[in-house]
Amino acid sequence: MAKTVNAFGWGAKDRKGFLTPLEFTRRATGDRDVQFKVLYCGVCHSDLHMIKDHWGFAHYPMIPGHEIVGVVTEVGSKVQKFKNGDNVGVGVIVDACRKCDQCVDNLENYCPERIDTYNGVEPDGSITYGSYSDIMVADEEFVIRWPDNFPMDKGAPLVCAGITTYSPLRYYGLDKPGLHVGVAGLGGLGHVAVKFLKAFGTKVTVLDISPDKKSYAIDTLGADGFILSNKPAEMGAAAGTLDGILDCVSVVHSLQGLLDLLKPHGKLVVVGLPEKPLELPIFSLTMGRKMMGGSMIGGLKETQEMIDFAAKHNILPEVEVISMDYVNTAMERLARGDVKFRFVIDVGKTLKDE
Amino acid sequence: MAKTVNAFGWGAKDRKGFLTPLEFTRRATGDRDVQFKVLYCGVCHSDLHMIKDHWGFAHYPMIPGHEIVGVVTEVGSKVQKFKNGDNVGVGVIVDACRKCDQCVDNLENYCPERIDTYNGVEPDGSITYGSYSDIMVADEEFVIRWPDNFPMDKGAPLVCAGITTYSPLRYYGLDKPGLHVGVAGLGGLGHVAVKFLKAFGTKVTVLDISPDKKSYAIDTLGADGFILSNKPAEMGAAAGTLDGILDCVSVVHSLQGLLDLLKPHGKLVVVGLPEKPLELPIFSLTMGRKMMGGSMIGGLKETQEMIDFAAKHNILPEVEVISMDYVNTAMERLARGDVKFRFVIDVGKTLKDE
Repeated sequence: MAKTVNAFGWGAKDRKGFLTPLEFTRRATGDRDVQFKVLYCGVCHSDLHMIKDHWGFAHYPMIPGHEIVGVVTEVGSKVQKFKNGDNVGVGVIVDACRKCDQCVDNLENYCPERIDTYNGVEPDGSITYGSYSDIMVADEEFVIRWPDNFPMDKGAPLVCAGITTYSPLRYYGLDKPGLHVGVAGLGGLGHVAVKFLKAFGTKVTVLDISPDKKSYAIDTLGADGFILSNKPAEMGAAAGTLDGILDCVSVVHSLQGLLDLLKPHGKLVVVGLPEKPLELPIFSLTMGRKMMGGSMIGGLKETQEMIDFAAKHNILPEVEVISMDYVNTAMERLARGDVKFRFVIDVGKTLKDE
Repeated sequence: MAKTVNAFGWGAKDRKGFLTPLEFTRRATGDRDVQFKVLYCGVCHSDLHMIKDHWGFAHYPMIPGHEIVGVVTEVGSKVQKFKNGDNVGVGVIVDACRKCDQCVDNLENYCPERIDTYNGVEPDGSITYGSYSDIMVADEEFVIRWPDNFPMDKGAPLVCAGITTYSPLRYYGLDKPGLHVGVAGLGGLGHVAVKFLKAFGTKVTVLDISPDKKSYAIDTLGADGFILSNKPAEMGAAAGTLDGILDCVSVVHSLQGLLDLLKPHGKLVVVGLPEKPLELPIFSLTMGRKMMGGSMIGGLKETQEMIDFAAKHNILPEVEVISMDYVNTAMERLARGDVKFRFVIDVGKTLKDE
């Protein structure tokens, strides 16, 4: 029988999604595993979908949380990359097959057998638990090294929101100085994307439906332009001006509106996940040989590259640090979009086991 | 007043789209123009849409025809590339601004001011006429040199259907030996695409809803596989096997079905033009970092490259040569898909002016 270790956290018992304190077990630290004390955990919008089973594949009890930073407390006998006391991070996945073309190419995120950090199914059938909890255990290959002197509270969301935006900007070549790139949807993903793009040296225009985000986009983030995407006149005036757009909008919206903003041969890259299919008028792609691409988080090697890049350029999400017992309120606020731009739970100081 | 020359052809007087003999005028041969006798003209599916004003921007009377080959009869004083007696071709466009980024990059087809071969509007407001007619006059920069000993009747459709498929296969990198590429829709475009792909050295699988096209695809075109795209079991069995797909289907169809056939990072390139928007489930793009791209004909330089490649590899469309007075019947057959795979009008021998 596999060895386990006791753990404690907050989780959902059913699809009502209400989070309450729960005791559970994790696997004990294996030869190639790292065990660490969780210090901070970001609240990803997908956590909200998952605890309420919006996508229909929830396992309960569910301990959410996949934007994780902490400090190593135990390493297995064969671990080479980490030692006790190291600061580390874990993102959206904790394992993959390690043999397929995707894994060989350091794209474990596209491995058909990847295992999600929580609600994932291990080969032995056990369910993975996330880090609204005191400790994590993960294979060292799926743990990233936290840069020295890089804030852990603000930085936590980067292992999900950061890599989700960094990876496509790199892969689709929207990282070249001189390009003019749009970011659609100034939320948890979008505001990090603007910061990466400014660090890459591109010109950036933010697209959002909220006029009150304009000053934050321009004055705080340093965006070069702001367009109200629900104002046809503003959209029309900007037609054909962008080399690419990172579309972070996760509700149903107009693809044609965004495609019309692109120059010929421009690229619309989607990372937001609307629940329903979007309408795609094929003329919008053919007339200017335009392209649409998708992307989903990133591989471990690139996640390490991203966090090192973020540390070097001091790229940190805008966060509101909360205590563990505020998390249900935070979920309610998240559901109505009342957060700028990410909640981060101070797990280390506020998770209490009595 | 600009000099004109008398011409004669078959055209539509109104949106009923019935074609009848018409006399009209073209511009006389200018300094940089080539005038040529039309020998053959392909019947593109878009001719059918245009004569009936399906797209809402028709000018009448309309002389359709943009898959044109002929023999030069007169050249302007500054023409350098052609002389009397040369065999030439003209495709979908006859002019562009020649100054914009697209024109400078030999992508006149994406110039916002390009002028279509028929139903196009010249800077002076006059409407262009196509080649269901005795003669054509065009600027030498928009005329291609017909390869020696390359059949003009079968070859005519290449200047539209050929470049429409060749250009995206090159641009999107689906032309590499070892790749496995799908062609969706085995019609006027699709069957030419299969021939190009076999010449490039890729493995080719044809997707169509007609079982009776299987033997033609495999035995005649040399395709490596055939999938009935309306059979979920066949589609499911092929999931994740293709590096790319050229989607030549011009009616509403499932994008998800095609995207599911792609390997991770695969490309779905659309050249067919359904009249209504298609449904795009964003998960289909993000899960495997897949891409969709559009493309529309090609520039003049690439059109010349395409026709030279086709001649070298003996790539010719499958055509049914018809006489001019059969064209209304041909349109009826085209409307119900009763053609394998392209009608070509023998304009030179069958257009009579009495």
